[in-house]
Amino acid sequence: MVVSKASPPVTCSDSTINLEKGDPLVFGKYWKKKSDECSVVIQGWEFLSYLSDTSNVCWYMLPELKGAIQRLHHVVGNAVTQDKYIVIGTGSTQLFMAALFALSPSQTPDHPINVVSAAPHYSEYKPEIDVLRSAVVQWAGDAGVYDKNEPYIEVVNYPNNPDGTIRGPVVKSAAKGNLVHDLAYYWPQYTPITHQADHDVMLFTFSKCTGHAGSRIGWAIVKDIEIAKKMTRFVHLGSHGVAKESQARAAKIMGAICDDYQKFESIESELFFGYCKNILRERWEKLKGAIEKSKVFTLTKYPRAYCNFANESFETYPAFAWLKCEEGIENGESYMGKLKIRARGGPGFGVGPNYVRLTMIGMDDDFNELLKRLSMLSAIQISNSS
Amino acid sequence: MVVSKASPPVTCSDSTINLEKGDPLVFGKYWKKKSDECSVVIQGWEFLSYLSDTSNVCWYMLPELKGAIQRLHHVVGNAVTQDKYIVIGTGSTQLFMAALFALSPSQTPDHPINVVSAAPHYSEYKPEIDVLRSAVVQWAGDAGVYDKNEPYIEVVNYPNNPDGTIRGPVVKSAAKGNLVHDLAYYWPQYTPITHQADHDVMLFTFSKCTGHAGSRIGWAIVKDIEIAKKMTRFVHLGSHGVAKESQARAAKIMGAICDDYQKFESIESELFFGYCKNILRERWEKLKGAIEKSKVFTLTKYPRAYCNFANESFETYPAFAWLKCEEGIENGESYMGKLKIRARGGPGFGVGPNYVRLTMIGMDDDFNELLKRLSMLSAIQISNSS
Repeated sequence: MVVSKASPPVTCSDSTINLEKGDPLVFGKYWKKKSDECSVVIQGWEFLSYLSDTSNVCWYMLPELKGAIQRLHHVVGNAVTQDKYIVIGTGSTQLFMAALFALSPSQTPDHPINVVSAAPHYSEYKPEIDVLRSAVVQWAGDAGVYDKNEPYIEVVNYPNNPDGTIRGPVVKSAAKGNLVHDLAYYWPQYTPITHQADHDVMLFTFSKCTGHAGSRIGWAIVKDIEIAKKMTRFVHLGSHGVAKESQARAAKIMGAICDDYQKFESIESELFFGYCKNILRERWEKLKGAIEKSKVFTLTKYPRAYCNFANESFETYPAFAWLKCEEGIENGESYMGKLKIRARGGPGFGVGPNYVRLTMIGMDDDFNELLKRLSMLSAIQISNSS
Repeated sequence: MVVSKASPPVTCSDSTINLEKGDPLVFGKYWKKKSDECSVVIQGWEFLSYLSDTSNVCWYMLPELKGAIQRLHHVVGNAVTQDKYIVIGTGSTQLFMAALFALSPSQTPDHPINVVSAAPHYSEYKPEIDVLRSAVVQWAGDAGVYDKNEPYIEVVNYPNNPDGTIRGPVVKSAAKGNLVHDLAYYWPQYTPITHQADHDVMLFTFSKCTGHAGSRIGWAIVKDIEIAKKMTRFVHLGSHGVAKESQARAAKIMGAICDDYQKFESIESELFFGYCKNILRERWEKLKGAIEKSKVFTLTKYPRAYCNFANESFETYPAFAWLKCEEGIENGESYMGKLKIRARGGPGFGVGPNYVRLTMIGMDDDFNELLKRLSMLSAIQISNSS
């Protein structure tokens, strides 16, 4: 039997599995265990007002959510909140645009500010900006090749979606630049917490922190009050605030995580971040084995680092696997498609089609099916070589 | 004592009352009564996914919310939902922009589409559009004077915020125009339900329907599937969906209202819309008396109409009072300011400063204080004439 690397040696007869999105369903196992103590009850008369705390810059934010966010960062040690402003949004998605507009000139500039991020970069930055076709901001692609002498905003994402690397800013332009740090995955189930992040504008999301993506709660930690005010104004004009039911629930769940860590009653592997890190570590070990045997893809290698939160060294276990196709395979997404696996190809992330991203935080059944389909590839390889 | 109409004859020594926003706190009285039966419990493991129903155009909408919206419109009879698509947003604010973008060309046009609405128009349309400084849509002001031969979108709001009038489209241009109907207040506590609204794009909001503004739930009823898809895509790119906790609670509360009406066990004045209409009617009667005596302002007159829902005739009881200053008073907002009443002046609504808007749906204490301060004006008038 002759097998060409350019097309998969097997056509899978089973149904398609969708590993294209980053739906964080893997964390459901933990929340099933903790369901009762994290449940919230909301009475019919609660949350009628648009307002929450008019003494706060972010007037629609419930004080208990602000407190829970500060406490969570204090417990985890992943970001400085002291002397900073917290602005919440409907997911960090809304805050991403709020930050770009807040960092742009108040008057319409001669041409839009260029927004860049080092490739491979998160695939949604570009469409989120493009849809508005704004005279204020425009997507300008890979920060690594940005050489215009024009004001810019660089988005730095660590650990980076899609490839899990830890990054800093890369633009070398002499022009004035602002930074937005997207720290959606800077939590200790994914990566060692090596430092307290302390940047001008940092974005976090409940979706990737605890796995509650349906709640649409994001928050920004912002150094400059004027930027925080402008971001709040953007959210005001875009949605008149953020759903309070979700805010109350996020506060409850963050509080429960912190309570558990501060009680010192459970062992680390039963607490949220330890429990989830173990799941991800186990998945990554299985995936590495399967990818290695497949001889079709290679994975990024992640350095070990000491985690100040977990008091141990480990590698990054990213929320996504970023696969590079071996020579001879031109299109990773199509290749996966023939295995009936939906994945997101490199071009959306600003690189070639020989890269492909798969979620590592989906359902167990889908992950196990991925391993099974990859093992079919390696079985064919073995049968060819024997 | 000589009193000039140009400035208030009294300076109020009490604290400022804020009647500037439309925070629907008046409905809290009803929800306190119904609190237990409308409470929701959300477990820790619920709503992890971004997705709700991938078979629906609006993939992030919970099926129970879709069902509750359809049922509520069926019970009230205020809008046709049959053979239409429902798209939800973070408040109708997000859907307003989603509709404008969906109705605009996919390619960037030579110049932005003009968005117009007959003055006095809702004061937030302009800043919501302006903040994005988009090449696709731009605010173009009063629909009543629009005479460009260029494509346009007319926003028709009935009952209209701020003046409570029932309106139709007014643009006379020969150019291609699309309509967006903002029906936030087309509910039977505010106005007689005279017909089932059946327009191409209709916007509603939970905030003004039941008073749950903190939940940030809006919905659009859309005739054309392609427009519904584009609106869904806009919400996807702006916030990756809508908070599910709020969706679940909105579904529960809408369901409770419908259950009560369909049980036929209570008298009309104890059911949601009847109860709230009685509060608004009472407030309006008191306000009309106070305004008449003040001799400083006049109010719009509303015709009586037969309400198909309540089976009786009544006037519109708008969520806002729209006051015209008598001759000699140039600035209604400043005048109110001297009475330590925060109100929103005419210019934001596209008309002169001799108009001013006050909320009619705020707290009892604030409303009663408004009456008290207006009565001080009339006391001075009486003392002057005696």
